[in-house]
Amino acid sequence: MRIARVVGNAVSTIKVDSLHGSKLLVVRAASPSDEPYGEPFVAVDAVGAGEGELVLISEGSAGRYTPHTADAPVDAVILAILDSLDVGGQMTFRKH
Amino acid sequence: MRIARVVGNAVSTIKVDSLHGSKLLVVRAASPSDEPYGEPFVAVDAVGAGEGELVLISEGSAGRYTPHTADAPVDAVILAILDSLDVGGQMTFRKH
Amino acid sequence: MRIARVVGNAVSTIKVDSLHGSKLLVVRAASPSDEPYGEPFVAVDAVGAGEGELVLISEGSAGRYTPHTADAPVDAVILAILDSLDVGGQMTFRKH
Amino acid sequence: MRIARVVGNAVSTIKVDSLHGSKLLVVRAASPSDEPYGEPFVAVDAVGAGEGELVLISEGSAGRYTPHTADAPVDAVILAILDSLDVGGQMTFRKH
Amino acid sequence: MRIARVVGNAVSTIKVDSLHGSKLLVVRAASPSDEPYGEPFVAVDAVGAGEGELVLISEGSAGRYTPHTADAPVDAVILAILDSLDVGGQMTFRKH
Repeated sequence: MRIARVVGNAVSTIKVDSLHGSKLLVVRAASPSDEPYGEPFVAVDAVGAGEGELVLISEGSAGRYTPHTADAPVDAVILAILDSLDVGGQMTFRKH
Repeated sequence: MRIARVVGNAVSTIKVDSLHGSKLLVVRAASPSDEPYGEPFVAVDAVGAGEGELVLISEGSAGRYTPHTADAPVDAVILAILDSLDVGGQMTFRKH
Repeated sequence: MRIARVVGNAVSTIKVDSLHGSKLLVVRAASPSDEPYGEPFVAVDAVGAGEGELVLISEGSAGRYTPHTADAPVDAVILAILDSLDVGGQMTFRKH
Repeated sequence: MRIARVVGNAVSTIKVDSLHGSKLLVVRAASPSDEPYGEPFVAVDAVGAGEGELVLISEGSAGRYTPHTADAPVDAVILAILDSLDVGGQMTFRKH
Repeated sequence: MRIARVVGNAVSTIKVDSLHGSKLLVVRAASPSDEPYGEPFVAVDAVGAGEGELVLISEGSAGRYTPHTADAPVDAVILAILDSLDVGGQMTFRKH
């Protein structure tokens, strides 16, 4: 699962039926010490994440394996909000 | 889901049966402020998107989870037309 | 689906049973104006494509969703031969 | 399957139900001679791996094919701890 | 399917049950003229491939569609040993 930061929102009225009611968040992959990299993309929120939070994203078919996204054409879902990360015995991130 | 702009059309008469009737659009990934990047590719349109519109694309097995593409060998589908995007509290895109 | 050009053939006698009878073509991803990029790879042909033709390739699990490749360990299939492509209102490719 | 080194831990209290009880490890892809490359990401541990160990990671839908991760939105799982690797007849890695 | 060369072996005693009995080979992607590129990774052998051979690798869910790997968390399988490859009418590889 990629580590990512929630950086914004996406709004769409014209979309496939199975996406109605889904919260679409703009996210950007990040390092364990919260440095963003790569192009932003959109994921469905399954845990009530908010802007600025560091989260875990599952991509591919895993995107359909939450109650919010079952059988929807979703290829990226936010499945966890991170409390902390440590690498090499050092804490690299802690949720404020 | 990747943010992408619809940039053109693809026409094919010789194709697998399950693709007949599908609208094939040429798309290019884009940033939240609508700057295109990477190589164009082709996606099946599931929401009536038109050239120039900013859309959301689902890739991989998710491509089969719309009524238009069920059980078809499709690995990229347009599942939403974007109204607006905001990043860091700033609106980066609004549909004209 | 990636746009690609058929550039050659692959021959293999020792292969999993489910691949016997499949036509293995060497393909290379291409831009809408038929400029190849990236490393060549191999796809199963599901539409009778020939060398030099511009085609659409589906990758991942979609590779199993043609009659030719059902339940075979195939992750890339040629599902359409392109007649034409246009981008920004300009025709960028037309089949000879 | 990618070769990777376990480099740390991820802790999350707010996550989808199906992830509760899963051990989330931070991993980084590595060469056969244990040189890390690319951005760290998070995988579910299915074999009791510990920090510093060289492991095999399966990604995509394979992430759901262990008893620990069945039907969970997991796209990366640690499925083996490596004892040794050899390349070109030379041992490039041996577990201490 | 990616063209790849078998470059070595991986040994693991601690692994998920469904992987026991599988032959784990280190492979590296290669061009049609057998020039390797990218980072080595590990694939399950389904056809008796040996070191130095040029093979076809299927990745993603296709990795589970051989008798050897059914329902195992495998995301890369060797499904064919290549006899020959030709590109642009020229033979670029022939098995010795």
